Formats: sequence, structure tokens, C-alpha cells
Amino acid sequence: MPKEKKEKLSFQLKTPKGTRDWSGPDVLLRDRIFSTITTVFRAHGAIQLDTPVFELKDVLSGNYGEDSKLIYDLQDQGGELCSLRYDLTVPFARWLAMNTDIKSVKRYAIAKVYRRDQPAMGKGRMREFYQCDFDVAGQSGDPMVADAEVLRIVSEVFENLGWRGRYTVKINHRKILDGLFEVCGVPAEKIRSISSAVDKLDKLPWSEVRREMVEEKGLDGEVADKIEEYVTLKGGRDLLDKLKANERLMGNAKAKAGIEDMSLLLDYLQAFDVLDKMWFDLSLARGLDYYTGVIYEVITEGSAPASLSATQNGGETAKQLQRSSKKAKKADAIDDDDRSDDPSIGVGSVAAGGRYDHLVERFLPKAQMPCVGISFGVDRIFSITKARMEAENQLDSSSVRRATETDVYVMAFGGKGFDGMLPQRMAICKSLWDAGIKAEFSYKVKSKLQAQFKAAESDAIPYAVILGEEEQAAGKVKIKEMGLPSEHPEKDGVLVSISELPVEVKKRLAKRAGTMAQLAEIIGKTETLNVKDSGGSGSSQPPRQQGQQQEEQPRKGEVRTGDDGV
Amino acid sequence: MPKEKKEKLSFQLKTPKGTRDWSGPDVLLRDRIFSTITTVFRAHGAIQLDTPVFELKDVLSGNYGEDSKLIYDLQDQGGELCSLRYDLTVPFARWLAMNTDIKSVKRYAIAKVYRRDQPAMGKGRMREFYQCDFDVAGQSGDPMVADAEVLRIVSEVFENLGWRGRYTVKINHRKILDGLFEVCGVPAEKIRSISSAVDKLDKLPWSEVRREMVEEKGLDGEVADKIEEYVTLKGGRDLLDKLKANERLMGNAKAKAGIEDMSLLLDYLQAFDVLDKMWFDLSLARGLDYYTGVIYEVITEGSAPASLSATQNGGETAKQLQRSSKKAKKADAIDDDDRSDDPSIGVGSVAAGGRYDHLVERFLPKAQMPCVGISFGVDRIFSITKARMEAENQLDSSSVRRATETDVYVMAFGGKGFDGMLPQRMAICKSLWDAGIKAEFSYKVKSKLQAQFKAAESDAIPYAVILGEEEQAAGKVKIKEMGLPSEHPEKDGVLVSISELPVEVKKRLAKRAGTMAQLAEIIGKTETLNVKDSGGSGSSQPPRQQGQQQEEQPRKGEVRTGDDGV
Repeated sequence: MPKEKKEKLSFQLKTPKGTRDWSGPDVLLRDRIFSTITTVFRAHGAIQLDTPVFELKDVLSGNYGEDSKLIYDLQDQGGELCSLRYDLTVPFARWLAMNTDIKSVKRYAIAKVYRRDQPAMGKGRMREFYQCDFDVAGQSGDPMVADAEVLRIVSEVFENLGWRGRYTVKINHRKILDGLFEVCGVPAEKIRSISSAVDKLDKLPWSEVRREMVEEKGLDGEVADKIEEYVTLKGGRDLLDKLKANERLMGNAKAKAGIEDMSLLLDYLQAFDVLDKMWFDLSLARGLDYYTGVIYEVITEGSAPASLSATQNGGETAKQLQRSSKKAKKADAIDDDDRSDDPSIGVGSVAAGGRYDHLVERFLPKAQMPCVGISFGVDRIFSITKARMEAENQLDSSSVRRATETDVYVMAFGGKGFDGMLPQRMAICKSLWDAGIKAEFSYKVKSKLQAQFKAAESDAIPYAVILGEEEQAAGKVKIKEMGLPSEHPEKDGVLVSISELPVEVKKRLAKRAGTMAQLAEIIGKTETLNVKDSGGSGSSQPPRQQGQQQEEQPRKGEVRTGDDGV
Repeated sequence: MPKEKKEKLSFQLKTPKGTRDWSGPDVLLRDRIFSTITTVFRAHGAIQLDTPVFELKDVLSGNYGEDSKLIYDLQDQGGELCSLRYDLTVPFARWLAMNTDIKSVKRYAIAKVYRRDQPAMGKGRMREFYQCDFDVAGQSGDPMVADAEVLRIVSEVFENLGWRGRYTVKINHRKILDGLFEVCGVPAEKIRSISSAVDKLDKLPWSEVRREMVEEKGLDGEVADKIEEYVTLKGGRDLLDKLKANERLMGNAKAKAGIEDMSLLLDYLQAFDVLDKMWFDLSLARGLDYYTGVIYEVITEGSAPASLSATQNGGETAKQLQRSSKKAKKADAIDDDDRSDDPSIGVGSVAAGGRYDHLVERFLPKAQMPCVGISFGVDRIFSITKARMEAENQLDSSSVRRATETDVYVMAFGGKGFDGMLPQRMAICKSLWDAGIKAEFSYKVKSKLQAQFKAAESDAIPYAVILGEEEQAAGKVKIKEMGLPSEHPEKDGVLVSISELPVEVKKRLAKRAGTMAQLAEIIGKTETLNVKDSGGSGSSQPPRQQGQQQEEQPRKGEVRTGDDGV
């Protein structure tokens, strides 16, 4: 490094727009979320797949509809043209196509994906963000069994995250949607664009969606009115029975196939004991091109934009949203804004997925590799969890606040002319590390005892090991538990033989771990992630999602055409 | 997805050049290596930092000398210009400069980095590869204490990976190098380029390096000869004593400061009980610009190119190497070759680092944030570990071969007209998952018993739970340990009550885990990673590195000018 210091940087010191550093308690909380999710994935027999962060540009193109414009390309520096992955699903399909010896597999992946979208960092909407995916591929099964296991996994993940009563899984079926569009008289070539208009019903009122269908997409007004009758339907088994009784719908081959799938699915979800978390919603359409069967997404409080939640009559709001959205776009062109405070943006869905039976064929035309999966939006789950913990002051608990895991701080003190005993402290640390004990010490040759205690306290390290010249000469060293009350008999520490130190420390750590485990048992299984129910709501409409206005329907987050939500 | 299948892809189905997918046993072995390394990092009080995969282009430029041409840039799509990170050190320095409240920190990071270099995949030389970094930043310490702890960590990592006797840590000091160049009469403006010529001594013989210095870099031949006297020196404390006795060297302020640092460092390494792993080597120079003090790298068998190891007289080899290297470059221009079989490429160093006291100032001119750290090249460590395990047939052990962790396969069988009991199998799985037990089942409505056993066996799942209609009616289910010999009393399984099933399975799993742990205890602490010493070599020259020709000096991998090795 040149020694002459520059006085000013020629560029802004920051991470790129829509990205962030993860450190401290945030990274610990995020890792706990990862761990909760992957534990569930592994309990279902999944193997891990880790693909490159960039793919050949040709692999990604043609999968994301209008959102392809959000793909990051690498610069052409000679050689292959590459792009940063947009999701984990397409790389999984590419991997399956390259590994034809794999006939069936459950795979999971945790990795960052990239979208050049408008960021809203505080809501976990980033340009670089994590996805946790679980997918089942292969043709060895009977219909809807794998689909049901994926939905069971969705439920297990959110239950284990402590979200009981705070999430809803919205389900629909592409074939039912396609069938009902046919029944209503939508021309074949308009089905995808009408479907994507329907998908906006979680953000816009019907009147706005109808206007888009009729005015922008040239649909007959009467056809639109027929669609309304269907896509406003939501429910559980009752809705399925209603559809089964609808002769026009059952007369359409696609709709009939979809309804039969849903019927099987609900039976299996009951066997898995998760039916009460599900919500059959005919307005759910999902943007991505590749879905072919059941589709689903998980919503929670905050999924919908605040401004929509605050009003009952959406007419005015919708125009407002369009305005504020345009404004945000314009502002972005000149500065590097974060839209976390924009009321037109909700957190969006926290998990989403579906069945995609023909994606692998894009890469291997002869492949017969039906797939179904789910993608968890970990950054959004993190943002919501953190906000709740802050609201409930859970972040004060030392198990969350601690950034390091250090068990022991090794220190020394002595009188006048004391040399600091640095090599002796090092040797003690060595003996602890050798025994697998996490230990630190001061980097000063001579460090004041008070400074050493302060260092141990500031990291909430539970034990101090204290060296002194006399004790050392006698082959002894002192173990002191930090933070004992002044009347405690061991307040001043306990002398142990140096050769016994690792064993003595381990004994105390084991005892402490036992106490902490008991404590955790009392507080609840998933101590820090678990958020207590805010009082039992009698309503099961929508199922299990409490803390919302009862008259309000569960809503998906902001509309981004073709967005797959997470 | 469109239903009409394309007959042929318009692009090659592959991952981008120099990248790979990680799955199956590979990803399990790699994750064990990650876990071994991060356990050590955390035992030393490190916190985790996760930075974005791309940085502003300006953040990266100017740090990597000639190797800046290997940086991947993102395409300019409007907005900021960004590049993929080249290492984890510069993002760490950028983070320190942005977070001025942090006065001192030990941080670790595991992440992929990107270099548009010639790949040699089989040797773990990739364009996308993992680094595991540990760095200490801050000015709260006295000289060389943090440096010693970093080197202690290096030793702990390789010992815990089971590499005892198979690695050597080469150490040098930039100030000693700079001082000796001054003493030898190298003009100030030539010091960096002469230093990078010296760094090639691990690959080229002195005659070639001398030629480069004199013919290409215009150094006086007599000066080069003086340099030779120094840079061929290697050793331990004996070398340090020799340098201390050299009056000309001790008369140079830089060399003197470096020698005093090294003297302190060796004392501390002795206190940490790792001095016998270290090798003071005056030819080690390291390519990166930002090092200011002690520098080090870890080499192992295979670090040097095979063709160099095979010969004693390097003169002819060197020319050979240049030829094959040119050939490889040329071939690359037309196809997508992998140079794993190129004898001119060794694995290179498996870990490297040093002190960089002024890097943070690049981003915050007033910063005073001295740093020292180490970067582990996990892909190379993985390649070497895997090759050894293959050579020693360790990959056959089921704990390595298993890709999933599934504990129980839930199956059913019955006579004629049997319905397959799918909902019952689902309900049993649910009860196991609820209890935290890893369970799978067949996705077929009706599956033959043999097919179900085959599925369980192929994934080496240890237990089967077998449902039958009669047992079910009696509230019972059978647990069967897989692979019991035919004379075993529990060969046909044990009937237990359905309500007791999770407890009964857990009991068996705990017992099995105990047995496995005892087994592991017998085999050795780090069962699968540990590679038994290939017989004790009496030689301690070079220290602790066995299995090499004794007359051969430890050598670093291929020279890549300005390469930081890992």
C-alpha cells in the first residue's frame, strides 16, 4: 500500500444499491432461520445442491417473462456470456438436465439470487437476497403426493420458526384457472395476460383489474364479469365441493383435472395434519411462465401494502398507488433511494412455489422430469422476525445480543513490576483450544486487570481464567464465573490446578449448558425465534392467521407483473 | 412452459467455464471442511461477516496489481458500475471503513470469490471458488500477538482436518525482504518487480529467476548474485540467529525492524506450541500489493507442479513449463479446456495471508486500522482431501457415501386387494417429523414391499417402519433395523404401539449414535477427514511435512505473478 494517504475518496463508500453487509446479531439471527429451515428440509430426505452464482445467459433467458429485464448480466470480457442467477429453480432444472443418471431427487439449496428491482431494504426487498428452496423431481410417484409433502414442509418451517397463527398458505391450480378462463370465454391467446391481471387482485380492487382486462387487454366486458364470479372465491373443502357441483366447470377437461388434483391434495394435507393452514384462493395466479399444476404462496401480516390495508374501498387507493409507484421510479433515476417507507410496497409473500412439469425439457427436450417445489424468502422472513423481536424487546436477551461464542477470557494480573505473563496466557489459551474450548486473551503484553474484565464483559463471556505469579508458581490458576452477586461464595473465583483447567472449565460449561437448556425449555422450544400468539382469535377466516382485521381478506404483497414473489 | 418440445438446444448445456455444481457426497465433505474451519475461527472469538457478491468497481480497483485483469465486471445496465469480489479481504477493509464504531474485531467469512483465470478443476483451481478467511483488525494490541494467533489458527485448522505431518507454513516478512533488497543494492523503483521475481523461486530454478531479473528487469548481475545469497536461506530459529548476526542487514532499519518482529513472533509461536509447523523462508514474497509485515502461506504435497517435483535439475523443466503453459493458453482461446492434467500446474498453496496495515486507509484516509489475516483455499483443500480419501478407499464408508440423513423409511405391505395405506403412512411420517425424526416414504399409492426396501437400502437408511392392516387395527407398527444378520433375534423387526413409535425410534437412534460415537472414538477423532500418517518420517527438514523426498525443499505452487495463492 502506498504510504501517502489520499485526502478524499473519488467514489462513494457504500455497498452497491440493493445490497447489504450481514454481521453481528443480524447474521446470527439469519443463520438461525437458515438452520431452522434446512433442518426441516433434511428431515424430509433432501440433499444439498450448490450451483454457480452465474449461469450462461442462454440458460436464464426465456424463463421469467417480463421480469427478464431484471436479470444482471456480466460484462462481455471475451468468452462466454453469463448472467447472475435470478432464482434457484432454473439452475436446478439445468442441473437435472445435465445429470441424466438422476431419476428422482429431493434437493435443497440456500443461496443468494439477484434481481435489478427497486429495493426496499427495511422490508427485506433487496437486489441481492437469499432464497431457501426445496424441490422434488422425478416421476416415481403418484399424483399430488410430492405436492402434499412440499406443503407439509411449508407448514413445518413456519411452525418451527414460531409463526403459528401468523401465516396463511394460499393455494390454487393452474389447470383450474385455465379451465375457468376457457369456460368464461377468454380467447386462448389472451389467457396468460388475463391470468396475470387476475394475479393483481391482492393489490388492486376488482374494478381496477376489470378495467385493465377490458380497456388494456381488449377483453369483452361480459367475459370479465363472468371471471369475477370465480376469482373472488376463496375457502377450504367447501369451495372444492362448490366447484365440483359446477357442471359447466366440470365439463371443461382442464378444470376437471385441476379440481380432481385439488381433491386428492386436500385428502393428503389432512393426513399430514396441515389442512387448517391452507386457503384455496382462485385469484392466486403467480407470474412465472413455467408453472403447470398446483401453485401456492405464503402470506403474513405486512405482506400487503400498508396503504391498502388501511382502507376498505380500494378505488382511490389504487390510483394513489400507481402515482406513488411512478414517483418512486422517477426518483430512482436520479438518486439511490430505498423504498422501505413507500406505503405502496408490502413485504410481499414470504414463500412461494408450485409444480413445473416441463421446465427441465427446456434444457433436455427428451426429459420427463416433473418437479414441484417451494422457495422461502429468507430476507423477508428475517425482516419480519427482527421487527417483531424488536417490538417485543426480545433482542435484549444475551443469547441474541452476543456476537461471539467465546466461553473463557484468559487474563493475568500482578503487582509492581509485573511483566503481564503474556506467554503464560498464550499457553493457557492453547490448552483450552486443544480441548475444544472457545477462549480469548488480551493482545497487550501488559494489560490492566480492569481492562481485561471490561473486554470479557463487553462480549458477555461467561468465565474468566485469571493467572497470577504466585498461583502460577504453585501450578494453580483461578476460574471465575462472571457476574456473580457479591454474596456468592464463588464470587472471587475458584483455584484449580493448571493441568486440570480444561476439565474444570468443561464441567462448568456443561452445567451451564444444562441450565440454559432448562431455561429454554421453560421459555419455549424455539426460544428466540418463537413469538407468542397475540391472544387466541376465535376466527378461522382466514385460517390460523391472527392479528389481522377480521373483515379483511388475506392479501398478497405488491403486484410486480411476472414476479414470483420471493 | 410451452408444450412443444424443441428438438435441439441452441446452446451448450453446461456451467460457465471454471465453475461447477456441488452436490451429493462432495457437498457433504466440503461442508465438513467448512465446519472444521469455522469451529476453529469461532473458538478464537471471531464473528461472521457476509458481504455482497459484487462491490462497486472502484472499491476493487487498484488492489490486485497485474491480476486486476482477472476481475469479473458486471455489464453497465444503467446505474452503478460493479464487479464480482476477487477476495474477501478488500470487502472486509471496505466494511471496516464504513463502520467506524468498530475499533477492533476478529471476523471470519466463508464465501465464493471470482477470478477470470485459467481453470484446473481437478486441482481445485476454479474461476468461482470458496475462501474461508479469518482476520484481526484494530490497534489495541502489542506487536506480533495477533499475528501469532493467526498462525496458531492455521495450525489448528490443519491439525483438525487431520493433516498432521502433511503441511508446512512458510513465513517471511516484507520488511526483511525490502531491507535485504536495499542492502544488496536494488534501486528503490525496482524493489516490487524484483520481489515478484523472487516469488517465483518455488517454481523456477534460480538461474531462470536471475535471468528475469537481469535481462527483463535490467538488474545489475552482481546485485542479483548478492540477492541469491539471501533468498535461498530457509530454516527456523537458526536462520533468525544467522540474520541477527549479519551486521550489514542489521544496519538497515527495515531489515532490523523485520528481524525483531520475527524474533518476537517465534517466541509467541513457541508459547502457542506451533513453532515446529513453521518454516522461515526468505524466498517467500507474495504477490499482493497491500502486505506490510509478516507474510505466510501453507503448502502441502501437490502444491508444486508435478513436473518440477519429478526432476532435480530444473533448467530444462522450466523451459518445458513455459512451453506447455503457452500451449495451454493457445488451446484455451479456441475451446473450453480444463488444465487439471497440465503438469505445469500444481494445486498451489492451500492457505495464505499476512499483515496489511494500510489497506483500510484506501477507503478511509484517516483510518488507523492495522490488520492481519489468513485465507484458506477450501476448494484446493477439498480436492486434496478427496483424492487422499479415494486413494485410501475411505469414500466407501457409509457415513461418507450417504447423501441424505434420513433415519426412517416408512413402508406398508399387505395381501391381495391391499390399498397401499398411503394416508396411514403419511400420518406416521407426520408423527415422526413432529418428533424431529428424519423420515421418508414412497410417493406411490401402492408400492411393492421390495421396492420400498430397495429405496431404503439405496440411501442407507438405518431403520424401516412397517405398517400392515392387521397391526394397524391393533394400534401397532413394526420397527426393523436394516441390514441385521439373519440369525439376529430382531431380524424381523419389533412390534411397538403406534403412539409410542416416535419414542421407540428415538431410543434406537440415540443408542445407534452412541455406538457410532464409540466407533469414531476408536477410529480417531476426526474419523472421515483424518488421514493416517503414512509412517513416521524421521526427517524434520522441512518440519512436519512427511511423504516428500527428503532432499526436496518444500515448494509453493505454480507461479502466477501477483497471485495471492488461494
